[in-house]
Amino acid sequence: MLNYSDTDPNIIRYALEALQAALAEGDTSKIRAALDELYPAQLLEHWSEFTPEHHLPILTLLSPADAAEVFSHLEENEQAELLEALPPSRIKELLGELSLDDLTDTINAVEEESPEAAQALLSQLDPQTRAEVEELAEYDEDEAGGIMTPEYVAVRDFQRVEEVFRFLRREAPDAETIESIYVVDAQGRLEGVLSLRDLIIADPKTKVAEIMNPDVVSVRDDTGQEEVARIMADYNFNVLPVVNEHGVLVGIITVDDVIDVIQEEATEDIYRLGAVESPELVYSKSSVWALWSARVRWLVILVVGAMFSSTILEGFQNTLQAVTALTFYITILLGAGGNTGNQSSTLIVRALATGDVRGRDSLRILGKEFAVGALLGITLAVLLSAKILLDGHGDILLVVAVSLAVLMTVTNMLGALLPIGIKKLGLDPALISNPLIATLSDITGLLIYLTIAQWLLHIKPT
Amino acid sequence: MLNYSDTDPNIIRYALEALQAALAEGDTSKIRAALDELYPAQLLEHWSEFTPEHHLPILTLLSPADAAEVFSHLEENEQAELLEALPPSRIKELLGELSLDDLTDTINAVEEESPEAAQALLSQLDPQTRAEVEELAEYDEDEAGGIMTPEYVAVRDFQRVEEVFRFLRREAPDAETIESIYVVDAQGRLEGVLSLRDLIIADPKTKVAEIMNPDVVSVRDDTGQEEVARIMADYNFNVLPVVNEHGVLVGIITVDDVIDVIQEEATEDIYRLGAVESPELVYSKSSVWALWSARVRWLVILVVGAMFSSTILEGFQNTLQAVTALTFYITILLGAGGNTGNQSSTLIVRALATGDVRGRDSLRILGKEFAVGALLGITLAVLLSAKILLDGHGDILLVVAVSLAVLMTVTNMLGALLPIGIKKLGLDPALISNPLIATLSDITGLLIYLTIAQWLLHIKPT
Repeated sequence: MLNYSDTDPNIIRYALEALQAALAEGDTSKIRAALDELYPAQLLEHWSEFTPEHHLPILTLLSPADAAEVFSHLEENEQAELLEALPPSRIKELLGELSLDDLTDTINAVEEESPEAAQALLSQLDPQTRAEVEELAEYDEDEAGGIMTPEYVAVRDFQRVEEVFRFLRREAPDAETIESIYVVDAQGRLEGVLSLRDLIIADPKTKVAEIMNPDVVSVRDDTGQEEVARIMADYNFNVLPVVNEHGVLVGIITVDDVIDVIQEEATEDIYRLGAVESPELVYSKSSVWALWSARVRWLVILVVGAMFSSTILEGFQNTLQAVTALTFYITILLGAGGNTGNQSSTLIVRALATGDVRGRDSLRILGKEFAVGALLGITLAVLLSAKILLDGHGDILLVVAVSLAVLMTVTNMLGALLPIGIKKLGLDPALISNPLIATLSDITGLLIYLTIAQWLLHIKPT
Repeated sequence: MLNYSDTDPNIIRYALEALQAALAEGDTSKIRAALDELYPAQLLEHWSEFTPEHHLPILTLLSPADAAEVFSHLEENEQAELLEALPPSRIKELLGELSLDDLTDTINAVEEESPEAAQALLSQLDPQTRAEVEELAEYDEDEAGGIMTPEYVAVRDFQRVEEVFRFLRREAPDAETIESIYVVDAQGRLEGVLSLRDLIIADPKTKVAEIMNPDVVSVRDDTGQEEVARIMADYNFNVLPVVNEHGVLVGIITVDDVIDVIQEEATEDIYRLGAVESPELVYSKSSVWALWSARVRWLVILVVGAMFSSTILEGFQNTLQAVTALTFYITILLGAGGNTGNQSSTLIVRALATGDVRGRDSLRILGKEFAVGALLGITLAVLLSAKILLDGHGDILLVVAVSLAVLMTVTNMLGALLPIGIKKLGLDPALISNPLIATLSDITGLLIYLTIAQWLLHIKPT
């Protein structure tokens, strides 16, 4: 029995070392024995530890089903390379084991590199599979049609339970799941759903129409994958049927596909909050140049924005020269302003993403963030006052403390408002990255600090 | 048929308005009719739009199954309040419909507020359910035992397929899932797994032992929920069995529970990156004081850290007074340094979370980030040089440009190293928030900038 101890890092490490040794020796039967001790998921997790020369024997010696499982999770360019290197018989086995949605993704990837190679692969498929793959290939990768598989089980409402069971016995091995069985009319339009559980409990003579649930939630094939993930997560569905514009059942989406979508979305949001572009970037596989180009655009935009700050500081030259000590607290003030704005934007971006707050709540949010920002500002102003007194700069105590409280209130509201505004424009609130808030808060902060200083210290403007 | 158009916001909006009107009228049959048009998930999504006085009639008039579905997703304090207000007959129905894991969570929540109320609830359960709930209540909420349910189906290996079907017909209605059927020995120890699919294809006279898969992956009941989520996502499992220290099957975890865990984890990481504590904070339900306390601690830590900056600036007073123009570029430099550090820490935090890089890759990461940081630094230094020349400050061009390139290289490596270091200490790398990187980079940046200025401009230290 495999239990948790088999996923224990030390035991996996031992199996991996045995495999590395067998690969170095080139002993086919030892490699097979070592592969038997590992799950496809474990091989994938440690895939980068094997040299590219070893990837080929691994995929050749695995059982066809495990090889297909590993293959379908590799990066697309590696898939294309392997398909050029693998023996034709193994390619045929692999294609036979891949589910239709994975098969379509693979052929799409090969097509980007070489249309001829993709055609060669397609010609190896039986005519029906080929037609299904060509149909699936029409969909965008990030819509329901692009993540669904047509390997569902569908029956008619006049069939009896015993007939459905006979049908299932024949169809089950090829279906992605048999947990939900769909009921369609003569034109293939979705009419209802049967759970396998209901089928098992039912009398064998009962008609499908009597036990099916006609309230079946489905999505259109052009629904975005984020929407699909949201529906499946909210409704706790394990399978979701996909229909075309005529209501005809064209495929199903299973929950494991949706977990991948949710994880991709989380990565995308986290990258954006850190002002990194290209959500599909995989760090360990990216070159220095790829990392540079994923990052440089936002840094340039932000530094151009920050250039206003030197103009502001130069404009207030008189004030800064009159009271040098003002300069000492700039970094503290701007830092605290940026941090406050980051916190409120983080909270609002997440609350918008999970549907906890909406655009129309903006007035209420603004009021709340005014109060929270002011309270936080006063708390930190008291703390900073002690430091200013210790530094012996009591003459500017009031200026710095008032500026800090005002600044934190303003940047706190700014951090909350920007994601809401972006959302109202129909864009993704996660575009408001922490660095963007920090840069905007720097500009705002300098204006607030130096204007308050001018007023309170009665300094003439330049 | 419900299809995507039924989850269309406008249609849902219409159904919600009909419900609001019926609730305002207090017409029971109209409320029932309006509730019929909405799914529990839709009610939950718009729950906060209904006044607390309306929550009670909604939960009283929904079908028991839908009421339990809604109830199990409410906040714990609201559950406790409702249990005080609902009529006893409805409470009994609700308790009967809740799955054992949800029931345990609810009773745990009530117990925190009032142990007597929890005892009263427990006394309404039948003895077996009560014993099971009391057993589940022993587990921590964030370990496998706390998210599992004991409502699985288990058979013995000597049983025949036809017997298993008879057993399933009786047990299916109460089981959380029948997709996987577990095989246990006389002591209840997990021996294997049967998929319902294999069972359907098999000859009715076959023995379970012949068709069961003995390679069943299970987790121990004290495995952390993040590890459970990782295993289920990596292995594409829909169900995962949970065993105790003796290998005895004690429950199963289904993939919908894991989706919740993945979303919670993403929220936790995103909050931490924004320096917000208390991952369970729900924005719309939090008071101003709750928000204040979730945020103040990090702001205080960061402002105390930032206080070094005023000491540094005061220490370099001579330099700043000798060349006033140096002050104008402080904000740009520190901003760019912070942004660069945020980008690299974001990439590394995510790469560590997804297992893409590990602690032992640190030298390679450092080399890569040195190169990326230097390239980004040189790019921005060229850009900033144009601005400095336009400002007419050619005399400090070299100081600012060199400082920017050095600073960005250093903060870029700092942003990458800190999460790795934190991980090596056994802590969560997401503790390295963007504001923390920004604050550390401010201190480093000032030291680099002013030291380089002193050297290149030959200014005597104070």
